[in-house]
Amino acid sequence: MRLVILCLCFSASLTQAQVDSAFFRKVFNEALENGQAYARLGELCKTIGSRLSGSPQAEKAVAWGKQMLSTYGFDSVYLQPVMVPRWERSKTESLVFSSTIFNAAIKGEKLQDYNCEAFEELPLKPAKQHRIPAVALGGSVGTKGKLQAGIVSVHSDAQMDSLGKAGALKGKMVLLNRPFPETYLNTFKAYGACVGQRVNGASKAAAYGAVAVLVRSMSNRCDLHAHTGVMIYDDKQPKIPAMAVATAVANLLDKLIQQDPGLQLTMQLGCQTLPDAPSANVVAETRGSKYPKSIIAFGGHFDSWDQGEGAHDDGAGCMHAFEALRLLKSIGYQPRHTLRCVWWMNEENGLRGATEYAAVAGKTNEKHVAALESDRGGFTPRGFGVDSAFLPKALKYKALLDANGIGEIEKGGGGADIGPIRKINPNAVLVGFIPDSQRYFDVHHSETDVFESVNKRELHLGAAAVAVMIVILDQELD
Amino acid sequence: MRLVILCLCFSASLTQAQVDSAFFRKVFNEALENGQAYARLGELCKTIGSRLSGSPQAEKAVAWGKQMLSTYGFDSVYLQPVMVPRWERSKTESLVFSSTIFNAAIKGEKLQDYNCEAFEELPLKPAKQHRIPAVALGGSVGTKGKLQAGIVSVHSDAQMDSLGKAGALKGKMVLLNRPFPETYLNTFKAYGACVGQRVNGASKAAAYGAVAVLVRSMSNRCDLHAHTGVMIYDDKQPKIPAMAVATAVANLLDKLIQQDPGLQLTMQLGCQTLPDAPSANVVAETRGSKYPKSIIAFGGHFDSWDQGEGAHDDGAGCMHAFEALRLLKSIGYQPRHTLRCVWWMNEENGLRGATEYAAVAGKTNEKHVAALESDRGGFTPRGFGVDSAFLPKALKYKALLDANGIGEIEKGGGGADIGPIRKINPNAVLVGFIPDSQRYFDVHHSETDVFESVNKRELHLGAAAVAVMIVILDQELD
Repeated sequence: MRLVILCLCFSASLTQAQVDSAFFRKVFNEALENGQAYARLGELCKTIGSRLSGSPQAEKAVAWGKQMLSTYGFDSVYLQPVMVPRWERSKTESLVFSSTIFNAAIKGEKLQDYNCEAFEELPLKPAKQHRIPAVALGGSVGTKGKLQAGIVSVHSDAQMDSLGKAGALKGKMVLLNRPFPETYLNTFKAYGACVGQRVNGASKAAAYGAVAVLVRSMSNRCDLHAHTGVMIYDDKQPKIPAMAVATAVANLLDKLIQQDPGLQLTMQLGCQTLPDAPSANVVAETRGSKYPKSIIAFGGHFDSWDQGEGAHDDGAGCMHAFEALRLLKSIGYQPRHTLRCVWWMNEENGLRGATEYAAVAGKTNEKHVAALESDRGGFTPRGFGVDSAFLPKALKYKALLDANGIGEIEKGGGGADIGPIRKINPNAVLVGFIPDSQRYFDVHHSETDVFESVNKRELHLGAAAVAVMIVILDQELD
Repeated sequence: MRLVILCLCFSASLTQAQVDSAFFRKVFNEALENGQAYARLGELCKTIGSRLSGSPQAEKAVAWGKQMLSTYGFDSVYLQPVMVPRWERSKTESLVFSSTIFNAAIKGEKLQDYNCEAFEELPLKPAKQHRIPAVALGGSVGTKGKLQAGIVSVHSDAQMDSLGKAGALKGKMVLLNRPFPETYLNTFKAYGACVGQRVNGASKAAAYGAVAVLVRSMSNRCDLHAHTGVMIYDDKQPKIPAMAVATAVANLLDKLIQQDPGLQLTMQLGCQTLPDAPSANVVAETRGSKYPKSIIAFGGHFDSWDQGEGAHDDGAGCMHAFEALRLLKSIGYQPRHTLRCVWWMNEENGLRGATEYAAVAGKTNEKHVAALESDRGGFTPRGFGVDSAFLPKALKYKALLDANGIGEIEKGGGGADIGPIRKINPNAVLVGFIPDSQRYFDVHHSETDVFESVNKRELHLGAAAVAVMIVILDQELD
């Protein structure tokens, strides 16, 4: 009997990996010593840069991604075609103001006087016209020439309703100026508390007769960088143009409006929505040894806003997924399920890639046992959001996760790109990767989301974290 | 009886704070909404900048610190005089090389070819002489004119011994080129594994007849910034000059030496050690209500190296301590022990401030029940290193600490500046503040340790973490 038992053990070891501290070390060491994610992210950011859906850069990125992934010897690398919306910013967009009292008001003042400790210089020089750091929100209509109007600032929906009902917004630009609440430890909660004014604020203001909106940038930082992002029109209201203004400027405008209620702003926006364009999700796979037709999908979104280089949002998430696949292959891990790295297209303004991905999986009767999304930047990993049903299984690994600094396991594993998978496989376990969130909204959707804002070790630790969670899913699910 | 019990409870609540989740929230909210640390750090960094012991800037900083702390209404703010060593860099320091094959070797090469993904530009242009990003190590002697020599690279002590015994180091400059091991999750362990070559390498090389040393910068990053730091001579050996070279340059030199064994470098260093200078520790206190003569000291070091602005090292630690004192006062916390924020002078190259601090406390029979040091930068807090004896008491708060992201409690609460306190109060509980370490050695002791590398929320979260740990010490100790 003894011989038989030994044989069984040996056979089991081929398919069932021992997920212990030595295994964790192997994964983390490979990531920290030989990680490829940072160098590949640098290529993506520096040779292609931003990649808004439907843009020529997005198509370059898709070609680069397929070619790059093909050099790592995965079982298969392919594109999954999808039509995407195409919104385009004009080169001429601008927001300027002239104020009779502004030149006097700013005399000797510094950015710090506007609740900013960023120690950047506001261009507070007396001038006839002042150009404001502002960018069109994604999806906005243009202005058809120059649009000049007075401005009203509101700090809450209730204030907008009250001013709107009093007729005070008619013919005005409205500054939607609700700042991030700073007391949440998780900055995504602050974003959640404010992003509504960006997404739906224009139509709400239009309902009260406003002619345009300026939205305070979605950021914890007080500085001069405008942060764009998606906005959506309510078809029942007139479509009015919408721009994001830097947080420091939002503070400044509040002050100026008090001093000069006659303040006029002039907006010029040539942005437009073009016909849908062909694009693709980028996929790389390692076939499962036991359940080749059962899939664990993991990834991020490959499109980005057209500001900066889409480094943290979401080049980092794409590289986490690629690197996780690479390093599991590199240490010789034999997955039981098929591991699939997916770079979804068009998360930012349409979710077409994720929708198509799930539709194709539904048509081909693919079974997803789990899906993991990384779309919170390339910062030091802290843990995971995990579906309640899988929580007890994940917590079996709590001590190992804690020892590697990634033991913050919370309920709730959603994510925009993996959400549609739930519709075709209701039992699929959804997991969200959670890195440190403190710096994310410093750079999110702005010109500062560049490669230089990513730290190599933080990115590679994130990839290692994603890899060990994939292994936990692979081992615990059948 | 019931009335009596109620009275007792009420009386207890005056001195014994309820350290629960509501108390934690109060501390964190005050730090995140009204934190002063970031703005004060900005002033220190931007109006004074670096502040090496004995320098005019260090004295300006001391005056600024006393004045600034005096505006917050603490029970007392004072300076504690101490004489400090004074080492001074010369303006003319330089390290250049000429190589017959270099111009051919670098043709078309980029920084990335030297294992760097930093995407900075190396000045790899053909030239007669190439100036290397290098800075004198603190404490180094000068070169007395120009020092020209060939160069040998060593990657370990064993290799130095073997080459030295074979006579290969005689008359040479020695490049001490042992890189950070990347596999430690805690980058301070990597520093610990390498810093010996910086501190003691010159005298070891001098024993084998070397004429100067170049030390690979103590950093995880591959880039063009040189990182200084203290070096100490063994009086039995000739004192030879020592410089730190940027990590990318250390890699480049390794390659060039292989291609051109005749490579010559020319060093010019005018640095010198001047007579000791008067300086001071800066102190601010809130008196204890129950044990006014028992002290909980907490702080960081106020001196910095002369590169950058001493923002993370250790302006951040000083601001953590000040802010912790401020916010406990601001929320109305009544400490049982006297809380003392101390900015120790001269941690970097002498520890005179900490030594004098303990000596004065010894002479005046002050009793320290605890001391906490923050000298690991202003990054997102993760937890604390705590003396074994206090560990069980600290772990009573584990759930609260975890809920605020600061639950990584480990054994061992040392720190250079609080070490001497142990000598006068052997039972004093020592605690080290532990923030995320991934980016610390990107900036440590280099020109990149500037205010812009500090994130406001990360800094303020650190201050809140320090504050709650002080309260735990204050409540748990008698």
